[in-house]
Amino acid sequence: MVIAVDAAGGEYAPHEIVKGAIKAAHEYKVNIALVGSKPILHVLAGRYLRKPGLSIIDAGEVIDFHEPPVESVRTKLDSSIVVGINLVRDGAAQAFVSAGNTGAVVCAALFNLGKIEGIQRPALCSVLDITRSKPVLLIDSGVNINCRPSHMVQFARLGSIYCRQILGTDSPRIGLLSNGEEETKGNSLVQKSHQLLKKTNLNFIGNIEGDAIIKGVADVIVADGFTGNIVLKTLEGLGDTVVSSLQHLVQGTTKATHVQGSALLHLVGLDSWAKRVDYREYGGACLLGVNGNVIVAHGRSQAKAIKNAIGLAKQTVEQGISQLIKEESHG
Amino acid sequence: MVIAVDAAGGEYAPHEIVKGAIKAAHEYKVNIALVGSKPILHVLAGRYLRKPGLSIIDAGEVIDFHEPPVESVRTKLDSSIVVGINLVRDGAAQAFVSAGNTGAVVCAALFNLGKIEGIQRPALCSVLDITRSKPVLLIDSGVNINCRPSHMVQFARLGSIYCRQILGTDSPRIGLLSNGEEETKGNSLVQKSHQLLKKTNLNFIGNIEGDAIIKGVADVIVADGFTGNIVLKTLEGLGDTVVSSLQHLVQGTTKATHVQGSALLHLVGLDSWAKRVDYREYGGACLLGVNGNVIVAHGRSQAKAIKNAIGLAKQTVEQGISQLIKEESHG
Repeated sequence: MVIAVDAAGGEYAPHEIVKGAIKAAHEYKVNIALVGSKPILHVLAGRYLRKPGLSIIDAGEVIDFHEPPVESVRTKLDSSIVVGINLVRDGAAQAFVSAGNTGAVVCAALFNLGKIEGIQRPALCSVLDITRSKPVLLIDSGVNINCRPSHMVQFARLGSIYCRQILGTDSPRIGLLSNGEEETKGNSLVQKSHQLLKKTNLNFIGNIEGDAIIKGVADVIVADGFTGNIVLKTLEGLGDTVVSSLQHLVQGTTKATHVQGSALLHLVGLDSWAKRVDYREYGGACLLGVNGNVIVAHGRSQAKAIKNAIGLAKQTVEQGISQLIKEESHG
Repeated sequence: MVIAVDAAGGEYAPHEIVKGAIKAAHEYKVNIALVGSKPILHVLAGRYLRKPGLSIIDAGEVIDFHEPPVESVRTKLDSSIVVGINLVRDGAAQAFVSAGNTGAVVCAALFNLGKIEGIQRPALCSVLDITRSKPVLLIDSGVNINCRPSHMVQFARLGSIYCRQILGTDSPRIGLLSNGEEETKGNSLVQKSHQLLKKTNLNFIGNIEGDAIIKGVADVIVADGFTGNIVLKTLEGLGDTVVSSLQHLVQGTTKATHVQGSALLHLVGLDSWAKRVDYREYGGACLLGVNGNVIVAHGRSQAKAIKNAIGLAKQTVEQGISQLIKEESHG
């Protein structure tokens, strides 16, 4: 299995991306194709090229975070994002992982891989690993800003397939994110989506409120991309604050008590807990509904998050997610 | 100053409400009119009635959390919510505080107090006290589910006034909640609202993303009531988890190290920090744009949150918020 990794995308590119990719190649026994500037990647990863598992695919251009997705994908044909997506299109790689401009990754996937037949709107499905029990999925976490009820039903179907295959949940409970549990609650999109979802064969448990996300009430949370993105980033922001507050507090305590900070964090068990709310460890989000496997990692991903995203990509390939979506969409 | 308090509303009514009200009467030197079943309140608060500061107003009916707001307000004329709002309408109280059915409180206020002239849609303005520095305001946190751009501009104006008066911020920075900072980002409501907000004399800093809420980038965060409510509850849910995880971890540590749990929490400074993310301490949200002062407390408010909500009500009255909104709406 070859996984193409965008070595030029993300705040910590290329160093942390390369580090994470090398770790993943070793840990997951996958072949990594690092996509980016050949001279730079040769300097960073040259000594690993002699061993199997790592190769470099040259891509001279970079699509920056603030560049308009459609235009940049159409003009920067030698960018790491376009080149990486095309590796998947041409069968040279089985998945593409990027921490770069999400909009550009989505556009490149739509243009060059295309939508799976029957899918109206591909959507990003994020893995939220911050609950007390198992992870929950949030779909759409940011692609489709203005949605119709039929799109929401498809998000539920896509999320349900992904949850079954990736998290091994038998009959995933689907919750519709709303401002109240009653079916009369919600904006007009949510109210109409609720009625459609009730008629499906999905395990639809009804509306869920914001505080239920983290409580593991539902396995898959369905939202339009506008609301989903805001919720995802709200969680990330609070997670950030939790982590830095803890670090700050522990540092303060260290001075006072002469106990080493990390030891105290470990003592109270907060080290592993802090990690769970930290986006730097996130596994990334999968773009569901396109002809190919595409994983979007957080823009601030460091080596460990990239490694985890590659792990998720591997799982996505092994479970044959695209094929399953194709079959269900035709069925 | 008399503040009417709904003694029958909320998950911990009447005990915790009465406890919080008695504390507030003492601490803030305000007169509290407890609104609820006279026989019950006499049992709970009878011994405090001899002293000044506390009185009971009989209201034999209760509007439950799951009752439809409009219908229940129209039929249950002797409910604590309707009676309490009418005390404000008739000038017998200067503010009303309730932890009961939010929809019913809003309806009763709209029907019996009426909107301030010029205000299209009254909105709930929540105080989020979870940032690292000072609190931020979120408006609308749950009343207006389907909004027009002109409503969003009014929310910004209402929030700006409230922020100036309650938090003492000179020129409050107004942020529009969106899925990206660029003005081209957002659903159609947000995009149109952005253009209108740019033309106002408000200190509009542009779109802000979910992770910026907690970072204190803006003083007032503007959202439609659907998105605002989901964000508020997402923060509450994560806050809940933080608090209980910490408690759980500290309890586990206690057994292991024979240090007392609360002492350890105090040692690492997490006790005060945990409180800040805990809704049980929230001061409540103010319904802005109606003729009168109405504070909605969290449904799970315990004594301390009720006391804080009464403190917020007192501040709202002292700052003459309704009058200021009237003046600015006419001006």
